[in-house]
Parts: sequence; C-alpha cells; structure tokens
Amino acid sequence: MDISQYKHKYQIKVRNYEIDWQGIVHNGNYLLYFEVARVNYFKDTGMEIDERSISGNTKIVVARNELDYFNPATYDDLLDIYTRITAINNSSIRCEAEMVLTEKNIPIAKCITIHVWVDPVSNKPVPVPNYYRKKIQEFEEGRAAILWPSVEV
Amino acid sequence: MDISQYKHKYQIKVRNYEIDWQGIVHNGNYLLYFEVARVNYFKDTGMEIDERSISGNTKIVVARNELDYFNPATYDDLLDIYTRITAINNSSIRCEAEMVLTEKNIPIAKCITIHVWVDPVSNKPVPVPNYYRKKIQEFEEGRAAILWPSVEV
Amino acid sequence: MDISQYKHKYQIKVRNYEIDWQGIVHNGNYLLYFEVARVNYFKDTGMEIDERSISGNTKIVVARNELDYFNPATYDDLLDIYTRITAINNSSIRCEAEMVLTEKNIPIAKCITIHVWVDPVSNKPVPVPNYYRKKIQEFEEGRAAILWPSVEV
Amino acid sequence: MDISQYKHKYQIKVRNYEIDWQGIVHNGNYLLYFEVARVNYFKDTGMEIDERSISGNTKIVVARNELDYFNPATYDDLLDIYTRITAINNSSIRCEAEMVLTEKNIPIAKCITIHVWVDPVSNKPVPVPNYYRKKIQEFEEGRAAILWPSVEV
Repeated sequence: MDISQYKHKYQIKVRNYEIDWQGIVHNGNYLLYFEVARVNYFKDTGMEIDERSISGNTKIVVARNELDYFNPATYDDLLDIYTRITAINNSSIRCEAEMVLTEKNIPIAKCITIHVWVDPVSNKPVPVPNYYRKKIQEFEEGRAAILWPSVEV
Repeated sequence: MDISQYKHKYQIKVRNYEIDWQGIVHNGNYLLYFEVARVNYFKDTGMEIDERSISGNTKIVVARNELDYFNPATYDDLLDIYTRITAINNSSIRCEAEMVLTEKNIPIAKCITIHVWVDPVSNKPVPVPNYYRKKIQEFEEGRAAILWPSVEV
Repeated sequence: MDISQYKHKYQIKVRNYEIDWQGIVHNGNYLLYFEVARVNYFKDTGMEIDERSISGNTKIVVARNELDYFNPATYDDLLDIYTRITAINNSSIRCEAEMVLTEKNIPIAKCITIHVWVDPVSNKPVPVPNYYRKKIQEFEEGRAAILWPSVEV
Repeated sequence: MDISQYKHKYQIKVRNYEIDWQGIVHNGNYLLYFEVARVNYFKDTGMEIDERSISGNTKIVVARNELDYFNPATYDDLLDIYTRITAINNSSIRCEAEMVLTEKNIPIAKCITIHVWVDPVSNKPVPVPNYYRKKIQEFEEGRAAILWPSVEV
C-alpha cells in the first residue's frame, strides 16, 4: 500500500467484542473504524463538521461506501488508518482511506466514502461551501481534485 | 428499483439502538442488515454455508462490499431486502441486494458483496465447488453468470 | 420462569453478527434486546416516551441495569421477551423483564432496569408525571407498586 | 468514587458511532467497555483466559452483570476503567469495576460481573482451578476474598 499520499493518520485498537465467530474482526467493524478515523480527519483539518455530521445548518450524509478487505485483523491488533479527501465536487466530497497493521505494514483494508451536503429539511443536495474547499486545498497541498464553483458559495 | 430480478426476500425491523445521532439508521447497520439477509439466502438456497461462513473445510470470506445509500431508514421501519447471486467465478461469488421500505417501495440502499472461498489454513483462494454452481443455477434459473471449470471440483 | 405476571410480550430474532467468538449471543446483546422490548412496552402502553427516551420536555435516563444469564441463545433463535413496570417511585420507574426461547420455554435471561426522569438541562431528577402512573396502573391492573405523590404532578 | 482499592487501570476512548439519539454514549456500550477492561485485567494478571473466555478446556461464562450509571460520557471522552476481582468462590469469580472521566475524576459508571467456570460440553459449573486463586491472591495482595477448597483442584 502506498501511504505516502496521506498526511492524516489515526490509530485504533481492536476490542474483544468486535471479533466474530470466525475469530477475526467482523467485516462490518472496518466500516466503523474508517468512520472514526474520518471524523477525526474532519476535526483535525478544521472542517468543523461535528460528530453528528452536522455543519452549521447543513447535514452531511453518506451516499456510498466501498470497502476492500485484504487481510483480517484480530484481537488486540493496533491499526493505523490513513485518511484523505481526494476530490470535492459540487455537493459531494470523496474520501479515501487505507488501513494497515501498525508497525508491520500489512494491508488490512481500503475504504472509499462519498459524502453529500444536503439541506436538513428537503434532503436535497446543496453546494459544499467554499470554506471547506479552501481548508482541504490547504491541508492536502494540491493532492485533492477540487472543483471551484463559478459562483461564490 | 427493479426487484423483478430477485427471488429471495428477507424482512428486517429497525431496532431503536441502531439509530444514530442524526435520528436515522447509522450507515454501518445497513451492511449488517444485508449480511443477515445474505446468510438467509445461503440457507434458503441450500448452499450449506453455516453462520460462521464455514462450508465443509472451506472458509468463505468477504473480499469487498459496495454500498449505495438512497434514503434513510428510521426507528421501527420494516425493510424488505432482496438478495441474489449474480455471478460465480473461479473462487468467488458476487451477491447483489436491494433494500426497500416495506409496502412503500421507497429505495433505501443497494449492496454488492464479493465472497471468496479460501483454504482455512493457508488463506489462499480455492475453487468454489461445482455443488454450489448447480444449486445457484437451479435457484436463479439462469439469471446468474456461472463459470463452469473445465475440471470437476 | 413465572411469566404469568406479564401482559406484554415482544419477539426478537437473533441475527448472525450478534454471535460471539464462543458461538453464542454476546452477553451485551441481551441488554439491547431487553431495551428493544421495553421501548415497545412504553409505546404499547401509551406512555408516549419516544425512541430517544424523551417525553415532552423531560429526558428519561437509564440509572441501573441488572442482568442474569441462565442459558445462552444462539443463531436464528426466536426469543420471547416479557416486560412490565413493577414500581413507580417519585422520579423513577422499575422495569422487570424475562426472556425465554420461543415455544420451548427455556429461560434465557432476566433484566431489571431503573429509569429516572430528569430535567434535560440540569440533569436533576423530576417527578414522574401522574399521567404515567395512571397509564401503568391501568395497564398493569394493580400488579405495579405505584407511589402517588400528595401534590399533583 | 474510591479508586484506591484498584491496581488495574485500562483506558478507552469513546467512538462517534457509540453515541445514541440522546447525544450520549448508549447505555449498552458501557457494558462493552467494562468487558474490554476486564479481558485486559485477565491478561495482565496472567490468568491465561483468552479472548474467547476459554481457559484450557474450561469455558468461562458471564452469569450476571450489574451496572450503575452516574454521569453520561460523550463523544471523544477518554475513560479510565479500574477493574479488580473481589471474590473467588467454588466455581465463580466476582469482578468489580469503576469508570471515571480521565483527569476529571467524574464518576461515569460502576459494574459488577459474575463469571462462572463451566464444562464446555455439559455446561455444568466446575471448580475454579487453584492456579487462578493463587494468581489473584498475589495480584490483589489480600484484597480479594478467596475461598480455598479443601481438595486440591
């Protein structure tokens, strides 16, 4: 896994009750781990998206999750999760994240998540404010493909 | 959503603790709902894959999950989950599933899952036995793209 | 188990991902099952406590949970959960519930839960409104020990 | 809370998806946190009970959980969990644990758990081996009430 593209890292430790009947982390838990890391990315980059995925009077919803599983994690494993925003379009952002076994660099899983900014009442998409575009351009130093709307939002 | 392609339906009811801070079902729970339906599909089609995803001396692992979220479900919602196997390759099967709000036919989410048959010791892929290919060809009545190996497995 | 004291029954089905490494339902899930049944008890008795445990401008919090485990439940088991309020004091209610394997009447677990009515801002206990006392006296037909405050609340 | 009785401490961080509809940690998660700490206590005291709660050819099951909730924890809170075994009887051990908000010493919850040693086939209680009694007497330096069987087990 090429983690050189990532500036943000978050560490998580597997808990005993996350292990399933096969003796490995249940496949649903990786989605949760990636989310924990992503919420921290939002916080650390100053995006001011709170834990409810509410930003001002806009709601941010998950529109898509793509997960690839490479190797199973198991009890007490320490996992490094690398997260970045790779694109901002009109109303959506694209996050990519990779998970490796700490210190051993064994790839565990990869996750691509699409978030959409919606009006909390109508649930219709609204533009991602330019404020976030600037924050991410700054943080990702040009590695993110950011669409700049012709009209200020 | 076109559910005419599906022969298998499983119903699930949203439980109160599955609701998140936004007042809707947390995005990770849909993955779990789809899995519950899929395990029942395996059972109902006679695939003899147990709840641990063990089949004889072969382990079946999840290699990929793709989830698209259309509308949020909320507390006490009754959900219909339609599941089918759309392809069987050498060592993998591809499941597709769609979730709608019962009776209202509102699309909630879609999930594509790739399972791989692996040796429980080496974790290397092994061929999906022909036994399953026959079961699925029968159940899906030609709607699944099944690769038949030249050598009997 | 003596279930003759109960008027309210709720059924739940064990889902595959609730099974732990020992091959049985993880001990934390029974707490969740009992809660699902209790939320339905509140609804069915007309207590108008919503899924967030908010009732009008009062918050209802869990102050204590006591769980006894008798026999393990496992995958696909159908469970009958019997719930009742056994006491209402000044600011708290006491719920008791028993879980048995459907049709086989094998005792699975018992749960006693204490809920407290609190002010949502100060988090200080407030009296349970008489409205609920009446509802429960009616529904439980005298089986609940209800303290009636001298002042109307 | 008097934490001077405890020698074992484990730290846990609240994850965003553990927050419920009221904006606080769901009451079922504290049970899980206490379990994570307890499994670590077993490991750190050399009790050789694995993550499946299997010890040699004996299965260790949870017979009772008592939880008292004092103050709610919320997103990103760091929690200190203090765990100790307070008694070993013939076939059971009693664990007590207290959870406080790290650095602020605000009490969050308390948990008492009874574990029973059972035969994995018959599920009947079997004596806790003396090996564990010695380990705990040593670790707890006389603070645990240990029953010593007259016959060597």
